[in-house]
Formats: sequence, C-alpha cells, structure tokens
Amino acid sequence: MGDEKRLTVGQRTAITLTLDAEGGDHAPDEVVAGALSAAAPELRVLLVGRPEVLEPLLDGADASNVEVIPSASVISSDDEPATAVKNMLDSSIVIGARTVADGRSQGFVSAGSTGAMLAAGLLLIKRMQGVRRPAIVTVLPGVVGPVVLLDAGANADCRPEHLVEFGALGTAYGRTVLGLDAPRVGLLNIGEEAGKGSELARAAHELLSRSGLRFVGNVEGRDLLGDSADVVVTDGFTGNVALKVLEGCASSIFGRMRAAAGASSRAKVGGLLLRPALRSMKAGMDPEEYGGTYLLGVRGLVVICHGNASRKAIANALRFGADALRKGVLEGVTSELGGSGVGEETAPY
Amino acid sequence: MGDEKRLTVGQRTAITLTLDAEGGDHAPDEVVAGALSAAAPELRVLLVGRPEVLEPLLDGADASNVEVIPSASVISSDDEPATAVKNMLDSSIVIGARTVADGRSQGFVSAGSTGAMLAAGLLLIKRMQGVRRPAIVTVLPGVVGPVVLLDAGANADCRPEHLVEFGALGTAYGRTVLGLDAPRVGLLNIGEEAGKGSELARAAHELLSRSGLRFVGNVEGRDLLGDSADVVVTDGFTGNVALKVLEGCASSIFGRMRAAAGASSRAKVGGLLLRPALRSMKAGMDPEEYGGTYLLGVRGLVVICHGNASRKAIANALRFGADALRKGVLEGVTSELGGSGVGEETAPY
Repeated sequence: MGDEKRLTVGQRTAITLTLDAEGGDHAPDEVVAGALSAAAPELRVLLVGRPEVLEPLLDGADASNVEVIPSASVISSDDEPATAVKNMLDSSIVIGARTVADGRSQGFVSAGSTGAMLAAGLLLIKRMQGVRRPAIVTVLPGVVGPVVLLDAGANADCRPEHLVEFGALGTAYGRTVLGLDAPRVGLLNIGEEAGKGSELARAAHELLSRSGLRFVGNVEGRDLLGDSADVVVTDGFTGNVALKVLEGCASSIFGRMRAAAGASSRAKVGGLLLRPALRSMKAGMDPEEYGGTYLLGVRGLVVICHGNASRKAIANALRFGADALRKGVLEGVTSELGGSGVGEETAPY
Repeated sequence: MGDEKRLTVGQRTAITLTLDAEGGDHAPDEVVAGALSAAAPELRVLLVGRPEVLEPLLDGADASNVEVIPSASVISSDDEPATAVKNMLDSSIVIGARTVADGRSQGFVSAGSTGAMLAAGLLLIKRMQGVRRPAIVTVLPGVVGPVVLLDAGANADCRPEHLVEFGALGTAYGRTVLGLDAPRVGLLNIGEEAGKGSELARAAHELLSRSGLRFVGNVEGRDLLGDSADVVVTDGFTGNVALKVLEGCASSIFGRMRAAAGASSRAKVGGLLLRPALRSMKAGMDPEEYGGTYLLGVRGLVVICHGNASRKAIANALRFGADALRKGVLEGVTSELGGSGVGEETAPY
C-alpha cells in the first residue's frame, strides 16, 4: 500500500525529475518559476542550485512538490564539457546528473551547457545496456504529424551502424511517446534512390535495409516535414544543421511576415486579422512549446532546453518529460535495442 | 569593327547560352517559351532538342535570336549520370555541353537530370585550371542580403582543403556577381567556437583560418540566413540537406499560412489584405525567381534549374546566367584561385 501510494497519484504514475536551476540565460528566476508551475503531487521536482539563491525565490509559493538540492558552482558553455563534468563536482549539472544516477530521480532537465549535459549523460548517468551512441532526439512539427529527427547533435562523426541504432532509438520513441504502432524510419539523404549520397549515407542505407526496422528509404531535406517517415535518422552534424536551419528559416519567415504586415496600413489590418490563426501555426514550431530535446539511450531521461528557455519552456519540458517517462520511453529503448540486433558491439568510450 | 559589333549590343556584351529544350518536367513547351521570352540580340540562345518537336513550337514566334541544335535522345534521372554522359552522345545534355566545350556558347542551362549536368560539366566542359572540385553555388535570400551557399550538392564527400576551395569559388562569385568588395566567408558548423563540429569541420576551420580568404569563423544553421557571412561553405552533403530543408520549411510555412488564412472568415480577410506584402517576401525564396543554381569551377557557366521549372524560371535562369557572365564570374574564379594558393594539387578525377 505504502509503495503503491508513492507510485501513483490518482490515475497517474508519480514521476520525480531533477531540474538545473542554475542553467540557461534566465536562470534562476525563470527556471524556478517554471518548476513551480509544473510541480504537482504526480510530478515532484528536485531543484539543484545554490540554496541561498533559490530559497528566496520559493518563499511564499506553494513549494510542497519541490525539493532543493544544494550545488555551489555552474558549468558555463565556455568550459570544456568533459573536463568540467569530471572536475566541477559541486556544479549544478554534476549534482543534478548524480540524482538520476543514484535513482533518486528519473530524469534531468537543464537549459545550461548542451555539451556539459551530454557529457554528464554519458559519464555520470551512463548508457543503457546495448546502446553505443545515445542520440539527441527532437520532434519536428511535420505537416501531417510529428517527425522524430535524430541524431540532432550528440555525435558529430558517425559510422553507418550508429545510424541503425538511431533508427532503433527513434522507433522506441515513436512507439511509446507518440503511440505509433510501427514507426516508418527514413534516412536523411541528398537523393531518393538507394545509391545516392555520401559514403556514410550509402553504407547506412545498406545496413538499414537489412535491419529489422521498418525502413522506408531515403528522405530528402525538402521532405523532412512531410509524411515520408515518422523517424528520420542522420549523423549528429547533419541533424544539428538541419534542425537549426529549420529554426532559422521559421524565425526568418515570421520576422519578414511581421515586417510585411507593418509595411502598409492595408497589410497591417491583414496581419491583425490573421494573427490568431498564425499564432496556432507558430506554436508547433516553437521550442517554447515543445520544451526541449531528449538525449535518449542513457539510464534516465535527459532533457536539454534552449539556453533562452522561459518559465513556460521549462514547465513544458518537465511536463512532457514526465509524460514520456510515464509512457515508458526508457523501457521502450531497452526492448527495441534488445529485439533489433543492433547495439551489441562493445561501446568505444 | 565587325568583331566589336558581335561582342556588344548597345551597352551590353552579347552572350550566347545553350539551353536543353528536352530537360525538365515541362519540356519542351515551357522551356521553349522561356527561351523565346529571354532571347534578345544581347542574349542569343542555342536550343538543343529534336528539331521536329522544337520547330512547331518556334513557328510564328520571333525566333531570330534562337538557333536550334539537333539532338535525338534525352538522359533521364534514372540513367546513371557518368555512364549516360559517356554513352548517350546524341542526347541533349551531351550535345549541349559540347557547344560550351567547343566555344560556341558561354554557358549551358538545363532543368534535366542534375547528376547528368554535373557529369557533363566535369567530363565534357571540364574544370578550369587550378580547380579540383567544382561546386554547386546557390544564393539564399538572407535577411540582410544574399548569402552564397556552397557546395550545395556536387561533392557528397569532401576533404578539408575542398572547403577552402569552395571559399575561393564563393568569394569569386561574391566579388563579381554580387559586387561585394571583400566577401566574408563562414563555415557551416554546429557550434560557434573553433573546436566544434565533425572532424571535417574542425580541420576545415583550421585551414580556412590560415587561408588568404576573409574567414569569419563558424556559422550555425540558424544563422545561415542572417548577416554572419556573405559566403557559407560546407560539404555537398550537408549543403544539399540545408538547402532542401530551407525549401521544405518555406513551402511548409506558406502552405500552413494558406490553410490558416482559410480557416475563418476573419483570417480569410486578413490573408487577402496581407497578400501583396507576402508575395514580395515569398519571391525572394522562390526558385522560379532566381532561376537555378550554378556549377562553378568548369570552363563555362553551368546552370541547373529545378526539374519543375516553368517558362519564367527558364527565362530567369538565362537572364541571370548572362548577367553573371557579363560581370565576369568565370574570370573571377581564375583570379581568385590563382591568388589564394588553393587548387594547386593535381585533380583526383
């Protein structure tokens, strides 16, 4: 009974997530506000930071589902990530990652240094059994439905077999979090035919064709947001470029649209009338709304938020992270990598 | 006197361009219509195709600046490009490329197979002296000004020194066609700092820093359309993905905008009022408007149009191509590659 009460609140499994209160451009104020907004009996938040800074921010609020975990320093994006994670033992990222490694929490959310979050994920939380290359998973607002892109930046140099593993990680994500029965896996490439692309892409195409995944072939950049595949795999260099080009394109178009709408009084009225419709469209492309990207393949959910995350982005990252855990994303990775025959080689690092 | 009359018409140097009348989804009708629209005393067009098909299309029009060059077959995108270019000697792409190789024309425009155009450029028109890797140059509609991206797809696998050469090709393009005094060259990468990125990107950063180019460092995907650099270099795989992601993003946003504008009568009125302003913005992102991309580094200007090019796209490709030649883009490549110390190694193919 006692155990059961701890595990579920009403119909929902209780989740504990750790949040780096010191990470991001708007830390700690906005991060703490996001924590307070998302924390609930079924979503407990371990808030890592300097107690003397955090406690005044919590003062007067209902912080009954928030617990402060003391840290003393902050890893900045100027610090070399692996070195910092090894040496700055009192930093919010190291102490936060340790709460996951120790089993006190099921995931770690931060808007701090992406490099340090990756290093903490790999070195402290550690890879799940059978995973060689944890990858950054990002969900794009496809025209028909969500498109899972990975690796979006964890592994700048990849071998073909890593892309097959990303296919398995993405399939696990699609099955559990998105509820897809058999996610279609595509390979980001520069032509539709099998023989197209770089050496890496051609070899990955070959391996993916022979894998147990539901491989649907190459996906060109212009079809990334289309309905060609549910999961699109690529190396972390190309994936990061593609993701950031998308972000830059969307923000450039919305910026031009604002300028266009201000250019004449006729256009201005048009912009005002169109605004509610555009706002809902923009939401699907806005990192504020989807919260953050996941490092998948480590023993806990690592959520990396944009450096400029607002309280809303932080709250969404916590809520969506808890939801993914409730839906069994980590168990999904285990069963997918066990079943697909990938990930059996000894990890190189 | 006689020579001078052939070279200039009014104030403008006369240019002859070859056009593949058989290439593209809308060939030959739209292609011929584009040729008729652009042809002028200062822009003569050699139209390559089956005479029995072309002549009826020219009938009744003023075709005084158009000359038909007979071809018999068409290389399709299903044909293996290099094999087709070597064997299909009566194809429109082979015969068209030969007019440039023979000096009858200064450039070749086609909406046919991109692979065959690349192969014809390399194998028939041939590289300029000092150029190892001709690259596809595309001009993106940056927020502040045009951004030259290369390689956009000619070389899927690159070595670091190739990216330096692309920097020189892009600088030549920026100086001559865009009239920039000293184009800023950036490296597409997944972080701003020098040590970031794949092995290729890190090594290219090192070489670019030591080159005579005006290297301004890394450019992230989200800043590609910003004002960080005038020329952005990357390998042909990443460049092609980035270009096509941009195209897909723009068309997805405009599609959603149309849907949003149709969703309520309020939004519909807004969309109508905003339309003229949006149309001018969209034009900057539309391949129909900018005509095509260039393969730069061969002994003539090779212009590759979208497969679905309309008469307008074909006409713009001819006009912009002639303009680039008048501005001395080919001479610019020679002087840039002579001066920068790149491109001295013997070509590997």
